[in-house]
Amino acid sequence: MPATSNKTLIAVVNGPNLNLLGTREPEVYGSDTLESTNARLEEVAAELGVGLTTFQSNHEGEIVDYLHGLRQSHHAVIVNPGGLTHTSVVLRDALASIALPVWEVHISNVHRREEFRHRSYISAIAEGVVCGLGIFGYEAALRAAVRHLKR
Amino acid sequence: MPATSNKTLIAVVNGPNLNLLGTREPEVYGSDTLESTNARLEEVAAELGVGLTTFQSNHEGEIVDYLHGLRQSHHAVIVNPGGLTHTSVVLRDALASIALPVWEVHISNVHRREEFRHRSYISAIAEGVVCGLGIFGYEAALRAAVRHLKR
Amino acid sequence: MPATSNKTLIAVVNGPNLNLLGTREPEVYGSDTLESTNARLEEVAAELGVGLTTFQSNHEGEIVDYLHGLRQSHHAVIVNPGGLTHTSVVLRDALASIALPVWEVHISNVHRREEFRHRSYISAIAEGVVCGLGIFGYEAALRAAVRHLKR
Amino acid sequence: MPATSNKTLIAVVNGPNLNLLGTREPEVYGSDTLESTNARLEEVAAELGVGLTTFQSNHEGEIVDYLHGLRQSHHAVIVNPGGLTHTSVVLRDALASIALPVWEVHISNVHRREEFRHRSYISAIAEGVVCGLGIFGYEAALRAAVRHLKR
Amino acid sequence: MPATSNKTLIAVVNGPNLNLLGTREPEVYGSDTLESTNARLEEVAAELGVGLTTFQSNHEGEIVDYLHGLRQSHHAVIVNPGGLTHTSVVLRDALASIALPVWEVHISNVHRREEFRHRSYISAIAEGVVCGLGIFGYEAALRAAVRHLKR
Amino acid sequence: MPATSNKTLIAVVNGPNLNLLGTREPEVYGSDTLESTNARLEEVAAELGVGLTTFQSNHEGEIVDYLHGLRQSHHAVIVNPGGLTHTSVVLRDALASIALPVWEVHISNVHRREEFRHRSYISAIAEGVVCGLGIFGYEAALRAAVRHLKR
Amino acid sequence: MPATSNKTLIAVVNGPNLNLLGTREPEVYGSDTLESTNARLEEVAAELGVGLTTFQSNHEGEIVDYLHGLRQSHHAVIVNPGGLTHTSVVLRDALASIALPVWEVHISNVHRREEFRHRSYISAIAEGVVCGLGIFGYEAALRAAVRHLKR
Amino acid sequence: MPATSNKTLIAVVNGPNLNLLGTREPEVYGSDTLESTNARLEEVAAELGVGLTTFQSNHEGEIVDYLHGLRQSHHAVIVNPGGLTHTSVVLRDALASIALPVWEVHISNVHRREEFRHRSYISAIAEGVVCGLGIFGYEAALRAAVRHLKR
Amino acid sequence: MPATSNKTLIAVVNGPNLNLLGTREPEVYGSDTLESTNARLEEVAAELGVGLTTFQSNHEGEIVDYLHGLRQSHHAVIVNPGGLTHTSVVLRDALASIALPVWEVHISNVHRREEFRHRSYISAIAEGVVCGLGIFGYEAALRAAVRHLKR
Amino acid sequence: MPATSNKTLIAVVNGPNLNLLGTREPEVYGSDTLESTNARLEEVAAELGVGLTTFQSNHEGEIVDYLHGLRQSHHAVIVNPGGLTHTSVVLRDALASIALPVWEVHISNVHRREEFRHRSYISAIAEGVVCGLGIFGYEAALRAAVRHLKR
Amino acid sequence: MPATSNKTLIAVVNGPNLNLLGTREPEVYGSDTLESTNARLEEVAAELGVGLTTFQSNHEGEIVDYLHGLRQSHHAVIVNPGGLTHTSVVLRDALASIALPVWEVHISNVHRREEFRHRSYISAIAEGVVCGLGIFGYEAALRAAVRHLKR
Amino acid sequence: MPATSNKTLIAVVNGPNLNLLGTREPEVYGSDTLESTNARLEEVAAELGVGLTTFQSNHEGEIVDYLHGLRQSHHAVIVNPGGLTHTSVVLRDALASIALPVWEVHISNVHRREEFRHRSYISAIAEGVVCGLGIFGYEAALRAAVRHLKR
Repeated sequence: MPATSNKTLIAVVNGPNLNLLGTREPEVYGSDTLESTNARLEEVAAELGVGLTTFQSNHEGEIVDYLHGLRQSHHAVIVNPGGLTHTSVVLRDALASIALPVWEVHISNVHRREEFRHRSYISAIAEGVVCGLGIFGYEAALRAAVRHLKR
Repeated sequence: MPATSNKTLIAVVNGPNLNLLGTREPEVYGSDTLESTNARLEEVAAELGVGLTTFQSNHEGEIVDYLHGLRQSHHAVIVNPGGLTHTSVVLRDALASIALPVWEVHISNVHRREEFRHRSYISAIAEGVVCGLGIFGYEAALRAAVRHLKR
Repeated sequence: MPATSNKTLIAVVNGPNLNLLGTREPEVYGSDTLESTNARLEEVAAELGVGLTTFQSNHEGEIVDYLHGLRQSHHAVIVNPGGLTHTSVVLRDALASIALPVWEVHISNVHRREEFRHRSYISAIAEGVVCGLGIFGYEAALRAAVRHLKR
Repeated sequence: MPATSNKTLIAVVNGPNLNLLGTREPEVYGSDTLESTNARLEEVAAELGVGLTTFQSNHEGEIVDYLHGLRQSHHAVIVNPGGLTHTSVVLRDALASIALPVWEVHISNVHRREEFRHRSYISAIAEGVVCGLGIFGYEAALRAAVRHLKR
Repeated sequence: MPATSNKTLIAVVNGPNLNLLGTREPEVYGSDTLESTNARLEEVAAELGVGLTTFQSNHEGEIVDYLHGLRQSHHAVIVNPGGLTHTSVVLRDALASIALPVWEVHISNVHRREEFRHRSYISAIAEGVVCGLGIFGYEAALRAAVRHLKR
Repeated sequence: MPATSNKTLIAVVNGPNLNLLGTREPEVYGSDTLESTNARLEEVAAELGVGLTTFQSNHEGEIVDYLHGLRQSHHAVIVNPGGLTHTSVVLRDALASIALPVWEVHISNVHRREEFRHRSYISAIAEGVVCGLGIFGYEAALRAAVRHLKR
Repeated sequence: MPATSNKTLIAVVNGPNLNLLGTREPEVYGSDTLESTNARLEEVAAELGVGLTTFQSNHEGEIVDYLHGLRQSHHAVIVNPGGLTHTSVVLRDALASIALPVWEVHISNVHRREEFRHRSYISAIAEGVVCGLGIFGYEAALRAAVRHLKR
Repeated sequence: MPATSNKTLIAVVNGPNLNLLGTREPEVYGSDTLESTNARLEEVAAELGVGLTTFQSNHEGEIVDYLHGLRQSHHAVIVNPGGLTHTSVVLRDALASIALPVWEVHISNVHRREEFRHRSYISAIAEGVVCGLGIFGYEAALRAAVRHLKR
Repeated sequence: MPATSNKTLIAVVNGPNLNLLGTREPEVYGSDTLESTNARLEEVAAELGVGLTTFQSNHEGEIVDYLHGLRQSHHAVIVNPGGLTHTSVVLRDALASIALPVWEVHISNVHRREEFRHRSYISAIAEGVVCGLGIFGYEAALRAAVRHLKR
Repeated sequence: MPATSNKTLIAVVNGPNLNLLGTREPEVYGSDTLESTNARLEEVAAELGVGLTTFQSNHEGEIVDYLHGLRQSHHAVIVNPGGLTHTSVVLRDALASIALPVWEVHISNVHRREEFRHRSYISAIAEGVVCGLGIFGYEAALRAAVRHLKR
Repeated sequence: MPATSNKTLIAVVNGPNLNLLGTREPEVYGSDTLESTNARLEEVAAELGVGLTTFQSNHEGEIVDYLHGLRQSHHAVIVNPGGLTHTSVVLRDALASIALPVWEVHISNVHRREEFRHRSYISAIAEGVVCGLGIFGYEAALRAAVRHLKR
Repeated sequence: MPATSNKTLIAVVNGPNLNLLGTREPEVYGSDTLESTNARLEEVAAELGVGLTTFQSNHEGEIVDYLHGLRQSHHAVIVNPGGLTHTSVVLRDALASIALPVWEVHISNVHRREEFRHRSYISAIAEGVVCGLGIFGYEAALRAAVRHLKR
């Protein structure tokens, strides 16, 4: 556990196109926005006694830079990599390089979608994977992460 | 929603070898047994105001028979199909034939294991999939199912 | 022709989930039940002057046991293996081991469905294959079997 | 149902090499010729109260031209595409373009033959597929077509 | 440039089933017929100062014969091979053998259709490929061909 | 059609390395620069009575940000994704998320190049695809888009 | 070595269709029955000073239940899984879960048979694999198991 | 050997595009035309004391019709199927149906060309295959056929 | 049985790198050397009343030459081809050409090792295959061979 | 050689995550940082009499922009693309577009790692590839580049 | 043509197991031995006015050494590589390195045999390939080689 | 480090066809011969204070024998396996069995050549791989090996 702060700190990282959450295809993704989702997660974090930082970017490079910065300060990462899930070895390497436990979240059930969405570069380096639970998936991952860190 | 009972009723179905939970490879699967896991789920169900029935079998045919019986009485199925996940079209057809929403749970992260465990016949007919959250995965699926049914 | 009875005897074997015939997805499978289907087949058998026995199970093992028992008594098998079609080498071996001619029937046209339903372990050991003719497919197979046995 | 004639009219179309029926490999295909097969089908059609037209060609283009002409006059097509089954997108498109229900027939069980005979471009646009029933397969398809049209 | 005529001459060749243009599936292919499409192309050709010949056949062999005849007289070929696109090495060889530049046109976007329509034997020997522009695709190809020949 | 402006507005988006147009490999790509190409497109847009905005970036993230901004203001997108065509699910998702019709353009005929250039993540969500027409391909796509919007 | 009994105890488990041994296809499998084979193995076990229990079932679930029961009492398993070899992840997991060394036996040489018989889910968790030695294969595996346990 | 004529009779059949021999790509195919090639073959046939008939067509159907007619009159077929080699099950079936020995000839070495030219539907039913010997390949096949028939 | 000697003679052939047996990776291969293994096999051969010749080479060509020489003198071959198992058609052809029954032995369980070790060119022409039994595998194969020859 | 400066100038470009060199997984990558590595390379460059510029970014787009700028000023590129190696056609195109010779370096031996790391989009356009030599690999590539430029 | 001798000199090289020609499987390979085959070829060479050297070895290395020696003295190579055809890059490289034209011969029709015999490492570097003509194939290749050299 | 000599000793092993270095295709491989290359390597070895032995053979078996002999005397192996790289499990096993660190060298960039040259059986057991650096690749590998041994 490399972080030195007393309080457990968890990062929630959303990848490309997730800034549009709640505004596109609400019948698929629901009407919650990324802001309301993050707000809900902060309530859960408070309930669980952990700190939370949230981040979203459409730029792979920015996500990598952000992840590098988590190494000394955070204890876990919850990530919804969006379309990078299926294509980015760079993101996988960035997550692996910071040596924090990772939970992968997808709002929709990717297994019901196109064939190319069935392969994830992230799952093999994650502790757990949650998909198709809607935005509750983030909360489930957060609760799982806290349980894992308390072991 | 075909069930006629007033109370929401959810089935938790565990497939082959899951009767050994807590007794084999505890470093992988933890020390919780199937009994203690089901007991914990019943607490959560009570908290959420829904009914719960649990079932485990090492026989594909018994699971199919059990699932057929759920059609008139239950509102959702949470299933950990064990090794049948990757091989059983029969189980997929049984789940599809009863027309209830399904959540698929795996205790360990199957994506870190052998290649053949990366394919699931169930995921494409499930609402959501949870893996690698340990036995908390069942609870996460139960909470997601109740949210889904309340929509 | 190993059977010793004077009358030609044909078995109609239905696999997993076919007990639900007529009760699930009637727009796909029609409203005939397995019972009414078998009754119709018995009429055809009577017309053709052959005996008929029918069997259905959701358990692969029970089907195998039943098939083994046909070896001395029956002259042909008509089988709708349901989901086992695509996954069961055991069923194939059981059919091969009793050395009776086999006709494979599917009510719906499996070639219009998922990719994994396009492969059958049974077709290569069957005399003929009928799919997409609805429940009339059983009758077509029965008539073909009787013609074949009379050759 | 685009056809305007009062009587149901069904076309039976045989593809390349089927003109040799009964003259080559009789141990595989039997001794019935295409003529005797068509004569038998006309008897069945009369019994069922439907009209029948038959056609055979070794030329893909002629079959396509013939199929185009069926659009206004016929109600269903029974087709044994011979070797075109496995290679002709043109035939598939011609069948799809006339918007009539199609039944695919093969005299022998193609699943017992070379790997390349296991793929059909036609099956996915057919109502049903019959193979390995010998020339009775045409009759089975004809009976199935009439049942289908009467629904 | 082997042709000796003074005027640039371009052939527009349509393959199997395209004679039905405007009469089948108008929601997909529009209501323009092959005749009206060719008429429009002749207007464009006149505008561009080039000659145009048009041809359609459902017979691969006739198309090959026609293409062979273009060698001495024409300067370019615009071809919509229909279903032959995905299956005909013969057509590819015929196009290659006459050593004229080729533009391949598809009215619909083949990449949105079945997997087997994603492979073209023609594209690798064509100058350019246009698909999904409706019948305007022919005009686009014609304009591109004239620009190419003027280089 | 979500845009509220009175005038039809179309975006032309060029991906990585297309800023070098006209300066690298002129024998392949011609001597037109991106600036002259865009200037020509603006002439065509003026002729057609539509507005045009152009954009190029070597950064996937910037393209995604730009596309998100088009949603309320534009009516169609013409995109040459360069090397992202074959690798970027993120770009596909961004294009899909803004729910505007898309035309995909490649200056060279990608089917004559390396195998990995034959797969496009974009084609399946595009209305049409144009490749190998040189820079005229943009004009063809623009004309097709305007026709499509006028339907 | 979890078993507490003083005497080494080895289970010989035969899967589906092996109850027919000696009665079907004797030219392939010989004329020894399962009973005579087991009797011979008991003689060898006595010679080697180890105990032997034998089991056969056509039901995957019964085999799994039986294997679970071996965990506390036995020291090794010799298994001929029949057709389950190539399809059953459940059987693999059951064998892995009891943490006993496994030897896999096939009477015929599966590598001379159909392609799908060349893949085994069991081999990767077995100590050794024997095929094509006829029923002597069981004896070879038994002797190998005893040597292994004595190491 | 079904033919009843006293003199051995061999057919040389050339498929699509081979009518252009000697006129296209002479650096690849040489400057011999099909006529001069056939003339040379007739000299060799005379030397060998066998009769020869030659045929070429760009129409698959015509080739099939021609082959059917050879059955009673000829003793062997030498065939250069051109592009049909790689795509035509119909041609394979026609050759198989007439039960004459077949020699397959390609003028150029198909193994040096595109991947799709490496697969032949004909080779598996031919006695021998000759490629890359130029037009001498026909003569080699003819001499081989005569030797074979004399065995 | 081509050999003319009165005594049954069996060859044990070891391929490349097996000369190092007992000296490399003893935790995998044990501490028995090839010499002690062969000595043990000679004891078994004496017990069984058969003759034994042993051979090892790191040169494929020498093994082929040796095998050719066995044809007239020996009755069976036991072969551990080492790395040639997975790559040598030459060895397969040599074994097939001498028309003696073959048993294939691997000391370790190749199915637990790299993917490329799961394919054997030898298994399909062998009577039986033994792997993972350690050096006892040779003895098992020898006993099986003698039983086979006595049939 | 397009550059006009008198001194040979070589760029060393490091891709995503390589900024962490020396701080993550030192047992794999060693304890040298990117700074010390670049310092060492500058010593070697001075020894060889060439100039050196170094660049690192986690942003694909920035690397592309940087590479574009090298075209007029530099004579060679040494690149360690990190995770982009296996996924970025954009990077390949950028390297190809500047028409400078390229050497590809990987610190670890990628062939010992996951399957997806065995494919490189860069190798086919590089002069040479070095992997598994640790940070000495950069020096080896630099020395090879200078030798190549001096030819 | 690097050779300096006045007379054209051609090498006939036979690979592993071909020393057994005429002694194994005469129904497949005929009763001609390698000696009689070579004698016949020498007669043909004399007739054609060229010199001939023949070589056979079961050792890949010896064949490579022999081929290297041909470079200065010979004008063409006729090779039947036996099982090396399908597996030996070394042989391909040796043939390519001596820069002589190559003809590949197989006595039997390899396309009728196992799948792995359908791939040849040699064909792509050969002028021509002959298979299934029996030992006459060598003569055909020799005549083709002489024609080729005379061009 | 098993070797007992005081001085570090490194073997440079070249496989089939590399004896021709400098004499074939100098535009690809340069004009250095194997002798001059080895002489240069000996100078570098002297500079680095290590001993060097060199070996080349066209016989896989001789290379294996040579490698076995290195086990007690040498500390590292530099190997250019030529065509064996892509086909020889035997060579891989020989290198693995002597438990010395290995560096793999290819003079040309194999990734620019045929597809089958992209797979190496050696890379996964090598410390490092160098290709496309010309004969300097050997020197780079030698320097890397010495650095590695000094760690």
